[in-house]
Amino acid sequence: MERYFLQLLQNYNKKSLRKSLAAHLGDANRFVDFSLSSGQLLLDYSRTSMDRQTLSSLLEMAKKSAVCVERDRLFRGDRVNFTEQRPALHMALRSDQVLGNLAADTVERIRQSRDNMRTHARAFAQGHLPEEQAERVRHIIHIGIGGSVLGPRLLIDALGRNESPSVHFLSSVDAHKRVDLLARLDPAETIVVVVSKSFKTGETLLHAQRTLQWLEVSLGREQALRRIFAVSGNQQAVDTFGVPRANTFYLPDWVGGRYSIWSAVSLSAAAVMGEDAFQQLLDGALEMDRHFQTAEIDRNLPVLMALTGIWHRNFCGYPSQAIIPYDHRLRSLPAYLQQLVMESNGKSVDSSGQLTGYDTTPVLFGEAGTDAQHSLFQMFHQGTDVVPLSFIGVICPDHEDDEAHAVLLANMLAQATALATGTGGLASPEPADIHRQMTGERPSEIILMDKLSPHTLGQLLALYEHKVFVESVVWNINPFDQYGVELGKVLADTIQPALQDSEHCVPEGYGLNAILEYIQKKGR
Amino acid sequence: MERYFLQLLQNYNKKSLRKSLAAHLGDANRFVDFSLSSGQLLLDYSRTSMDRQTLSSLLEMAKKSAVCVERDRLFRGDRVNFTEQRPALHMALRSDQVLGNLAADTVERIRQSRDNMRTHARAFAQGHLPEEQAERVRHIIHIGIGGSVLGPRLLIDALGRNESPSVHFLSSVDAHKRVDLLARLDPAETIVVVVSKSFKTGETLLHAQRTLQWLEVSLGREQALRRIFAVSGNQQAVDTFGVPRANTFYLPDWVGGRYSIWSAVSLSAAAVMGEDAFQQLLDGALEMDRHFQTAEIDRNLPVLMALTGIWHRNFCGYPSQAIIPYDHRLRSLPAYLQQLVMESNGKSVDSSGQLTGYDTTPVLFGEAGTDAQHSLFQMFHQGTDVVPLSFIGVICPDHEDDEAHAVLLANMLAQATALATGTGGLASPEPADIHRQMTGERPSEIILMDKLSPHTLGQLLALYEHKVFVESVVWNINPFDQYGVELGKVLADTIQPALQDSEHCVPEGYGLNAILEYIQKKGR
Repeated sequence: MERYFLQLLQNYNKKSLRKSLAAHLGDANRFVDFSLSSGQLLLDYSRTSMDRQTLSSLLEMAKKSAVCVERDRLFRGDRVNFTEQRPALHMALRSDQVLGNLAADTVERIRQSRDNMRTHARAFAQGHLPEEQAERVRHIIHIGIGGSVLGPRLLIDALGRNESPSVHFLSSVDAHKRVDLLARLDPAETIVVVVSKSFKTGETLLHAQRTLQWLEVSLGREQALRRIFAVSGNQQAVDTFGVPRANTFYLPDWVGGRYSIWSAVSLSAAAVMGEDAFQQLLDGALEMDRHFQTAEIDRNLPVLMALTGIWHRNFCGYPSQAIIPYDHRLRSLPAYLQQLVMESNGKSVDSSGQLTGYDTTPVLFGEAGTDAQHSLFQMFHQGTDVVPLSFIGVICPDHEDDEAHAVLLANMLAQATALATGTGGLASPEPADIHRQMTGERPSEIILMDKLSPHTLGQLLALYEHKVFVESVVWNINPFDQYGVELGKVLADTIQPALQDSEHCVPEGYGLNAILEYIQKKGR
Repeated sequence: MERYFLQLLQNYNKKSLRKSLAAHLGDANRFVDFSLSSGQLLLDYSRTSMDRQTLSSLLEMAKKSAVCVERDRLFRGDRVNFTEQRPALHMALRSDQVLGNLAADTVERIRQSRDNMRTHARAFAQGHLPEEQAERVRHIIHIGIGGSVLGPRLLIDALGRNESPSVHFLSSVDAHKRVDLLARLDPAETIVVVVSKSFKTGETLLHAQRTLQWLEVSLGREQALRRIFAVSGNQQAVDTFGVPRANTFYLPDWVGGRYSIWSAVSLSAAAVMGEDAFQQLLDGALEMDRHFQTAEIDRNLPVLMALTGIWHRNFCGYPSQAIIPYDHRLRSLPAYLQQLVMESNGKSVDSSGQLTGYDTTPVLFGEAGTDAQHSLFQMFHQGTDVVPLSFIGVICPDHEDDEAHAVLLANMLAQATALATGTGGLASPEPADIHRQMTGERPSEIILMDKLSPHTLGQLLALYEHKVFVESVVWNINPFDQYGVELGKVLADTIQPALQDSEHCVPEGYGLNAILEYIQKKGR
């Protein structure tokens, strides 16, 4: 499939990349032809070096790369996760239509889990256990790592409304935060939500065991277990741990961790944003699904965003991309997208088992604006590398300080302009001092959201999911596995005994014995 | 100066880069020859493709690049910030010896400011204004952006001990956080610390004005102003704002924002970590200063760390670097270092006014481990690009869960090993499935701290400061200016009126009028 992509890549006249990006901005039709809106989102990709010919070649390539065929396979529940031989059906969590393709008992289980989640979220928001008004809930310890924490954290930061319950995350195995946290919480007011699809994640189980012990000391085992909730696909392991069946939420194996925000993984977040808001999040994502499924390829937001990414990565050769949301509430979005994008498409073997030979995912990083202007932007403007940016702005704020909001949006638009034009262009005279000069010609895209609501955030996250999928189709890689994380886990198990007991050694080939000796000496 | 660097770069036989990194690990003397400790820090750079010949060529280049001469100019107070014609003397804030080189009245002013900071930090920690026990302080609103917030946030996350006062940061101009914050604080228990060297930073002054108004409504103007403290180099602007002289802390112009953690910028942090701990931070940094000044170049930590960076950036061509601290308390370190590294060395014009022609700072990004293992690491292991990693580990934790800490450190060492060896190497059999294979040969360095204390954190931060300086000397660029951020500010001022009034237009060449129209339509 990737042969059309390779053809285009090989045939493309690199010199045409030199066409001035800044000059495009003078084209009166540039915005009309290089922007697209759907739902409450706009994508403006006018500040790139793509011209009309480039864009139409890329669209042609996308058609020939069977983007639409693969998209339909995805939604139909085909085994698009070809290495693990299973479908990727997180869309079923937000669409009754997609869900309807599945076996009746699965449908029933998903619906029950969803209703169950609503009931629990409502009770927690009201400050008690479901059907147990006397059992208080003021704090939730949410234990999970990777996709089991990044989604809930994003939702709470972006859409959290209820002051209570407070959600405290435990993710990294580092015990400092847990020890501090447990020292100041009251077990009788705290519940614990343990999220792990496999229920084998080392970090998560260690935190869960320690936290259970902490509850037990105050409440006894039975009451402690009533305050533990599990979100998992491994019922047996959950049973073994001792979580009551009524406290268990089902996570199907066709939902990957980095696509699990739509599931009961977001239980804690739903308590803080409200269970209706959570439903609106799903509805927003569903709206983007329908757009992706039905819009023509040249009016299809995820497709155009993916092609912009591919243009920058493969044709321009830019190795990284910055995500800069100009809204404090979206400060966790870069970390969320790092996982979604880099874990999905950080692969170098294609579906036929060959090395791709071309670059796949860039490094993705970022921080909220205007903060980022005071840390990252010097390099973006004057560094030796070009870093394409994604600006994300919100048109209508949820406060009444119009001046502050105008300053915020003006800064975002100004940065995009300055990156494109530099000094000496239309926007600014060239300073005499060469150290003050900026070459411009640095591309960016702007995503505008009408406002930040559960519905628009659902759209935005589904947009990114499908963008990642389209890129994976063009690159002919599997975005749904993550085999690269496994070796480290295996090695950690063999190294750990050597840290706890100096008699233990690790194999010479690890090259670790000298540093282990150093650690043991200092650790005494 | 950079001609020795260019010579080496041009002469270097790229094929020698192919020498297997994993094979180095079998060398029994590798750790001894490719690691170095000073103070309570160890740098292990054995998991790189450098061999002994490479290292000695790089050290030779560093000598010829006048690293030592420039270092001595730096400490002597010469105008190493050659574009702005001023010294960079943040080291004077931690060293009486360096301070002694300055004019007597400056010395006096710095000493007074330091004493004043101690007095204030102690009073705030005790919950009141200095010499006004009846005036309560339970919350500090710290207003500042970039270097005026990243340092204090790092210190509080890493070393915060006192539960009270709570410090709340306002940085980005986005008003959502401010509006939420002011709605839940009591002005009579809150003080405001406004940090801006120029006292002209747009974001900071807007927050400061709004927060002053909020205080005034409850307390009246005079009492409100008594609760505002300013850290600035612009006394006139501070006076105009109305901050009492007794509440003003002096920030000299030879301390850049990203080097200001050692100054009264850290007032809020000193209240939370304790004023003695802040002094220990300075002492730790001073210890690293002395090491940098006196150690031979081939036993000099900042030099060796810089050469490792240069090796990866210029000789291997890696465009980014990941910082992964395996300690939850250091979770803000990647953001702190992003500014220090990227704002300092994100330049492309050398001291003679020529384009460098070689790459300067890479993109720097990261997240705390083990969290990062579940988001970034898939790409690090199996992506098409090589991303060199800096692991930062702490040997002795400040909790008693030895098992959790062993798991944490084992994970760090396992990741470094897996990146180096891949599958099929000494550490792991090659899986039959090519999608599970990992090529290895991905470099990393490990920094170990004996423990995380104010003293060791001071060492670590000074190590990075000097590493950045050494790189700037080799690259022959000025790490102390940041002209690249100015154009955006100017453009923002011209764009803002067009967002608040649809009659306003911006120049056609900005290419913004169509998107401004879209925003106005949606914003109604």
